[in-house]
Amino acid sequence: MKLIVGSPGTWSGLSLRVTQCVFAMASIAAMASSFGFTNYSAFFYMILALMVQLIWSLALAGVDIFSIRNKKDIHTLAHVTVIVLGDWITAVLVFTGASASASVTILFTKDTHICRVYSRLACGQFALSVVLAFIVWLLGAASCFSGFWLLVSFL
Amino acid sequence: MKLIVGSPGTWSGLSLRVTQCVFAMASIAAMASSFGFTNYSAFFYMILALMVQLIWSLALAGVDIFSIRNKKDIHTLAHVTVIVLGDWITAVLVFTGASASASVTILFTKDTHICRVYSRLACGQFALSVVLAFIVWLLGAASCFSGFWLLVSFL
Repeated sequence: MKLIVGSPGTWSGLSLRVTQCVFAMASIAAMASSFGFTNYSAFFYMILALMVQLIWSLALAGVDIFSIRNKKDIHTLAHVTVIVLGDWITAVLVFTGASASASVTILFTKDTHICRVYSRLACGQFALSVVLAFIVWLLGAASCFSGFWLLVSFL
Repeated sequence: MKLIVGSPGTWSGLSLRVTQCVFAMASIAAMASSFGFTNYSAFFYMILALMVQLIWSLALAGVDIFSIRNKKDIHTLAHVTVIVLGDWITAVLVFTGASASASVTILFTKDTHICRVYSRLACGQFALSVVLAFIVWLLGAASCFSGFWLLVSFL
């Protein structure tokens, strides 16, 4: 089994997955606890994307633990291809959601100053959630690239 | 020179670049001719990203024409790496801009119904511009993948 940092079935891969889960949960919590976020499609979409990422990362953390405990090599071409494809799709979903939510947050805070006028709107929490979502995306992209590197080594 | 569809220095690559330029110009025109788009950061950012894409595609169309006219092989590792990197960066910029603008357009039309109330706002043009920007992104992604395929063939 090739020991590429962050690849499936390694300790670094497992810690990357766990960190993804933690940040995704933090971002979802920050958004879900803010007033009236369901009124805005972009925020709602971002929460959905983060949930998909959370489920995916949890499942792969389970696979990593299984692989480490049983010392089983999961670095086959088929396995790695599926993992890289899944990572790619979830990363794109989270990135789109984060970009969309960031633009709506900027619209609220900078472009229209609606946050100053309408103080019940939890703009600080929206911003926090967006920053956390971008961190989730960066961690997802790291997983994706390390899996991809592994995939290239099969060629 | 390997003949991969859409790769630099081929007729298909040139036509892909020209199509990118045409759609980017159409998207910029649709947005720039709409009332008050500069008030919204997301639209402004998308226009900037599309302009970067336009300049990049124009430059590479020039390189393709040079390569085809002089029958010069530009498929060296260094050339292709620079082109793929540039394609990747512009595609990500356009994708972020299009996602951000799409979310603001949805906010205007669906979430807040501001378009119905404030009829001077050119929501139809915003939507058209966003759709065209997504087409630009798809074409950019096609260029990126064909360049990337060429890059993998060097391994």
